[in-house]
Amino acid sequence: MAETLSIAVPPLPWRRIVVGCGMAAIDFVATVDAFPKPDDKIRSKRLKVLGGGNAGNALTCAARLGLTPRLISKVADDTHGGYILAELEADGIDISNVVICNGGTSTFSYVIVDNQMKTRTCIYTPVYPAMVPEDLPRSSLLSALDEAKLVYFDGWLHRTALVIAQQAAEMNIPILIDAETNKSGLNGLLDLASYIICSEKFPQEWTSIPSITYALVSILLRFPHVRFAIATLGEKGCIMLERSIDDEGSDIDETDVENLLESLKMRVDKDNVLPSCVSSECMRLCAPGVGTISGRLLLGTAEIIPSSEIVDTTGAGDAFIGAILYGCLML
Amino acid sequence: MAETLSIAVPPLPWRRIVVGCGMAAIDFVATVDAFPKPDDKIRSKRLKVLGGGNAGNALTCAARLGLTPRLISKVADDTHGGYILAELEADGIDISNVVICNGGTSTFSYVIVDNQMKTRTCIYTPVYPAMVPEDLPRSSLLSALDEAKLVYFDGWLHRTALVIAQQAAEMNIPILIDAETNKSGLNGLLDLASYIICSEKFPQEWTSIPSITYALVSILLRFPHVRFAIATLGEKGCIMLERSIDDEGSDIDETDVENLLESLKMRVDKDNVLPSCVSSECMRLCAPGVGTISGRLLLGTAEIIPSSEIVDTTGAGDAFIGAILYGCLML
Repeated sequence: MAETLSIAVPPLPWRRIVVGCGMAAIDFVATVDAFPKPDDKIRSKRLKVLGGGNAGNALTCAARLGLTPRLISKVADDTHGGYILAELEADGIDISNVVICNGGTSTFSYVIVDNQMKTRTCIYTPVYPAMVPEDLPRSSLLSALDEAKLVYFDGWLHRTALVIAQQAAEMNIPILIDAETNKSGLNGLLDLASYIICSEKFPQEWTSIPSITYALVSILLRFPHVRFAIATLGEKGCIMLERSIDDEGSDIDETDVENLLESLKMRVDKDNVLPSCVSSECMRLCAPGVGTISGRLLLGTAEIIPSSEIVDTTGAGDAFIGAILYGCLML
Repeated sequence: MAETLSIAVPPLPWRRIVVGCGMAAIDFVATVDAFPKPDDKIRSKRLKVLGGGNAGNALTCAARLGLTPRLISKVADDTHGGYILAELEADGIDISNVVICNGGTSTFSYVIVDNQMKTRTCIYTPVYPAMVPEDLPRSSLLSALDEAKLVYFDGWLHRTALVIAQQAAEMNIPILIDAETNKSGLNGLLDLASYIICSEKFPQEWTSIPSITYALVSILLRFPHVRFAIATLGEKGCIMLERSIDDEGSDIDETDVENLLESLKMRVDKDNVLPSCVSSECMRLCAPGVGTISGRLLLGTAEIIPSSEIVDTTGAGDAFIGAILYGCLML
C-alpha cells in the first residue's frame, strides 16, 4: 500500500476510530513477463518491497481517507516486522496493540504480478508462532476498543478475532467482516457481524445457491443482525443487498431479486467510465425457495481503467474495504 | 546451501585456490502443498531463508570439500547483501573481491518447492545496478586470480566474466563454464573454456542436434581447447565426453558414440543405489554427419534416493559443479 491515493473526500468532523484485526505482512511484489511453469527459472526485472496483509492494507486506506485506525495483529521482532510497523505508523495507524513476539518470523507474502495476463498470485507464510488470544492482554483489548465506532476483521487470526468480536458486540460496536474465503472460524465471526463484504465466489460457496442475489438473501436471512452484505465482482463492480430497518415496502408486491438485478444493470450508463451506483427502492425482495426480506439492492460499477494504466491489482479488494469503513462511519 | 554435506573425501595436500564468478543471492525457499495457479492466494507453511545463487552455491560446496574458493560477484549494501556475505564467509569463502554497491538491491530469489510434484521453481531478481567490468578494479582482478588453479563461471555477469576469463586465459589458468542455459555472452566464454558442464537440454539447443552424444561431439569439435564436456541428466546422472590428450586409440576402428552410450547403460548395476561410473576405453568416437574425436565416454549414475527422503533439489546442480571443481583440482 505504498502507492498514493488522492481522492477528494469530505472532511471528517471528528475523530472516527476504527479498529482492524488481522494480517499485517511484508509484501515482495515481483513483476514477471509471464507466470512461471513448475521447474522454470525465470527473471523478474522489478521487485517492490512494501507493507501488505489484508488488515494492514485496509487500515492504510482508511487512514488516508481520514479515519483514525487502530490495528490488532502480530509480528515478530525481525527485520520484516520492523519494516511492517514503521510503514503502518508512517501512515498514521495506531500500532500500540500489535503484539511483537521475540524470535519467530513475521508474515511474508510473495506476490507474482504477471504483466501479460494481468494476474496477481500470492504465496504467503503466516506469522510464526501464530497469534493466540492469550497474546493480547485484556487491558490491550479494552484500550483498542475504547471509543471505537467500528471493528473490522479480515478473517485471519480467527481465534483472537472471535474474542475481540465478542467484546465488541458486548460494547455494541458494529462489526464488519471480510468474508473473502471460507476461512476456519468464520461462522463464529459472521454470527456477530453488522456488515459483511465478501468475494464474488463466497455467497455461492457458503450457501450452495448458484444465484449470487439469492445467496445474498440467504445470508441476510441467516444473520438477522447483518445490515448489509456486499459481494465484490472485480472489474464488474459490486452488488449490495441492504436490509431496511423499519420494514418499509412490506405492503407492496414482492420482487424477484435476480430480476431486479437485471433491471439495475439496464440502468447503468455504459458510457460513464467513473464508478457509479444504481439502487432500487426499498421493497420486498424475494429469492424463490430461499425466502424474502425487506430492503433494497444496489449495483456499483468499477471505474473503467485502460489496461495500460493498471500497475497491478494487489490490495485492490482491501482498499475497497477501507473505503467501506469510511462509508460506514459517515452513515 | 545451509544443509550439511558429509561425505568422506581425501584430504587435500595443499591450498587449492578456485575462483568463482557469478551470482550470489539470498534465497527465500517456500514449501507449498501444490504449485499455484495464476490469481491464486495460497499458504506456505514453511519459508527458509538461506544463501543461494549458482556461484555462491557451487563455491560453498567447494569450500566444504576442502578447496579454497574466492568469489567475484556483486551485492548491494542492503540487509540481504549483508546476509549473503556473512553466510559465504562463514563457509570459508574469500569474499574480498565481491563488489558492494551503495544503494541498489542484492540478487533476490524466491523458490517455490512443490511437495506434491517435487518441482522447484525459481523467480530471481538480479542485483541492481547490474555488474559491469568497471566495477572490478584491475588490482582486484589480479589479486583474485593470483595462484588460482581453476576459474569457474556460472554464466551470469557475462560482461565482467569475459574480462576475467580473458585474463585467466592469459595466465594459463584452466576455465570451467556452467552452460546451464544459452545466456547472452556465453559463446565468448565457451571460446576460452577448458571444461564445460551443461544441462540436459543445452547440447541439443546449442547445436540443433537431437542426439545428446552427437551434440557433445559437436561441442568438443567446435572448441578444441575443451578437455571434457559433461551433460547433467538429473536423477538419471550425467554423461561425460572426454577428449584424449595424446590421441590414443586413433589406430582402432571408429565407434558410433550413441551406440557406445547404449552399451555403457547395459553395464550399469541397477541394484546399486550409490552413485557409480562406467567408462569406455579411449577410442575414436564418431557422430555421423558431425565428425569424429579421440576420447572416451563416461556414464555417471545418481544415487537412488527414496522420494520421502528428498527435502528439495534447489542448488543440486550447483553442488554437482562444486564436486567437479574438486575433481578437476585432484587431476
